[in-house]
Amino acid sequence: MQIKKIRMINNPKFAVIGGGSWATAIAKMLCHNLSEIAWYMRNDTAIEELKVNKHNPNYLSSVEFDTDQLLLTTDINEAISYADYIVFAIPSAFLGSELEKLTVSLEGKIIVSAIKGIIPETGLIVGQHFMETYNIPIENIAVLAGPCHAEEVALERLSYLTIAGGDLEKADVIAKSLSSHYIKAKTSDDVMGTEYAAMLKNIYAIAAGMAHGLGYGDNFQALLMSNAIREMKKFIKKVHKLKRNINDSAYLGDLLVTGYSLFSRNRMFGNMIGKGYTVISTKMEMNMVAEGYYAAKSAYLMNLELKAKTPIIDAVYDILYNNKEPKKVFKKLTDKLD
Amino acid sequence: MQIKKIRMINNPKFAVIGGGSWATAIAKMLCHNLSEIAWYMRNDTAIEELKVNKHNPNYLSSVEFDTDQLLLTTDINEAISYADYIVFAIPSAFLGSELEKLTVSLEGKIIVSAIKGIIPETGLIVGQHFMETYNIPIENIAVLAGPCHAEEVALERLSYLTIAGGDLEKADVIAKSLSSHYIKAKTSDDVMGTEYAAMLKNIYAIAAGMAHGLGYGDNFQALLMSNAIREMKKFIKKVHKLKRNINDSAYLGDLLVTGYSLFSRNRMFGNMIGKGYTVISTKMEMNMVAEGYYAAKSAYLMNLELKAKTPIIDAVYDILYNNKEPKKVFKKLTDKLD
Repeated sequence: MQIKKIRMINNPKFAVIGGGSWATAIAKMLCHNLSEIAWYMRNDTAIEELKVNKHNPNYLSSVEFDTDQLLLTTDINEAISYADYIVFAIPSAFLGSELEKLTVSLEGKIIVSAIKGIIPETGLIVGQHFMETYNIPIENIAVLAGPCHAEEVALERLSYLTIAGGDLEKADVIAKSLSSHYIKAKTSDDVMGTEYAAMLKNIYAIAAGMAHGLGYGDNFQALLMSNAIREMKKFIKKVHKLKRNINDSAYLGDLLVTGYSLFSRNRMFGNMIGKGYTVISTKMEMNMVAEGYYAAKSAYLMNLELKAKTPIIDAVYDILYNNKEPKKVFKKLTDKLD
Repeated sequence: MQIKKIRMINNPKFAVIGGGSWATAIAKMLCHNLSEIAWYMRNDTAIEELKVNKHNPNYLSSVEFDTDQLLLTTDINEAISYADYIVFAIPSAFLGSELEKLTVSLEGKIIVSAIKGIIPETGLIVGQHFMETYNIPIENIAVLAGPCHAEEVALERLSYLTIAGGDLEKADVIAKSLSSHYIKAKTSDDVMGTEYAAMLKNIYAIAAGMAHGLGYGDNFQALLMSNAIREMKKFIKKVHKLKRNINDSAYLGDLLVTGYSLFSRNRMFGNMIGKGYTVISTKMEMNMVAEGYYAAKSAYLMNLELKAKTPIIDAVYDILYNNKEPKKVFKKLTDKLD
């Protein structure tokens, strides 16, 4: 066990679960430091193309990989068997069906959530889902938070990460494995708060998109973000009281990079709703569901118990789930903000 | 005196000092509520054109005025004699020379600073300058803070203002006089903190522009803003300790609207410096000096006493006043942020 621990620190084995842009960015960051990583994706055509052309054909296709470093597999069990640290970077809606494929045990594995969403089936954040459904102890849970767009990792533009972990030693291994001349990664012990912030920010990004779609301008956007961070603070404080500075980059920074990004899928989702598309047609048009869509429902339902003052979450929920008219809901919301 | 007080509340007389875009936006807001305002600008051609065409020819020229409401004058003494509330909305660098023209007394007048800058000659924020140089009591000082771009006032896009005042009753009169279907104005008692925040945010907007000019991306911008608000909090706490939520819209909101705006002159100024222009050629190119340029010096010098940890202010100061290379200064700065 001791020998295994030393190896896990000095020569950690990572698996990346997912084939999207964030998974690809994480694989790139890890390949900077590790001689080998396992990389699971469902799409076997993508794997074949990646093997031949050294680029993920579908996401961040500018990034070149040394395929000798990659244990590419379409078998999630193979990837998990190989690694100590399992980085999940797939949409939360697919996590359940992926985990159903497991035949190997997760015991002793460190689960790194890079998902930033809510598991629709359980309404839990990813770390809690693993703790409750798979009995993973909190020492083996970590959360990977930004502010960090995958696209800028591809461009090697300086970005900062926060690795929140139940065990700071393991969080430190993850941080070191991701660091490079363009990535500065630090650790935090706020596993819960960091993951809730990552999930809530997607709701606020939807709100920002809705506001934009409805014709509100930059003055209102700044006002909305200023209210959003105060609302986030209240919500997280009720979920998990801890001394934290909500203006740290993992909370405020992450909110801003998403809330201000024109490329954020959550913001785009909100923008279409604000412009008058229905939820159903927006889902079809985008050919995916934004994480904030599930997060809004889950946060709203949680807050029936928590009773934090969350007018922005309530507004997004009302529009997405109660079929309320965005224009009217936002008109009312503007009276609650300051 | 009692009668005057009632009139000042029910029928307040305002003068706007300045002919730029922010002054024009304020004049528009006031004209929504008041039958008459005085409006001073230096430029007599602009006044003549405004009288004939009902638009300020140089700034926010889309805004139409009912000239019957406007006492337009090129004599600052006439405007000040007329009014109880004097809204200063000129670049801080011109305030000194404008005030030299005064022959009338400021006694009993309420000074409203919409300048958001430092008086270069004294290194003081506007409110303090009036208190120290003109013996105006703090009850007669107010500060008008955003988040609010003048351009969006012209478009009547919903915007929020904070009026910080030494006397909340007077602040309330100002707030009511500015409010409308597109302006929500609230009051605050944090005169000092609000004005320092307004001045500091211009330095951070310069930093954001420099980062952009140097090629840093959106991930770094979010990180920078998250650090900026923490730095602002520390600085203001040392200047004037008071229970305030730095994430309120007058502080964080104002920082964001400026730091993220591509139209902010401060951000533009920083952007040119980041791209390699010298300070002198940037000033010439822009044909003006951004408020944050003076603010950086003043804040830096003040902080030699205050000793708050302000790596961003220090970096901007080093680049603007010590001729340090932006690329190197920012490389070092990135190690101090988190």
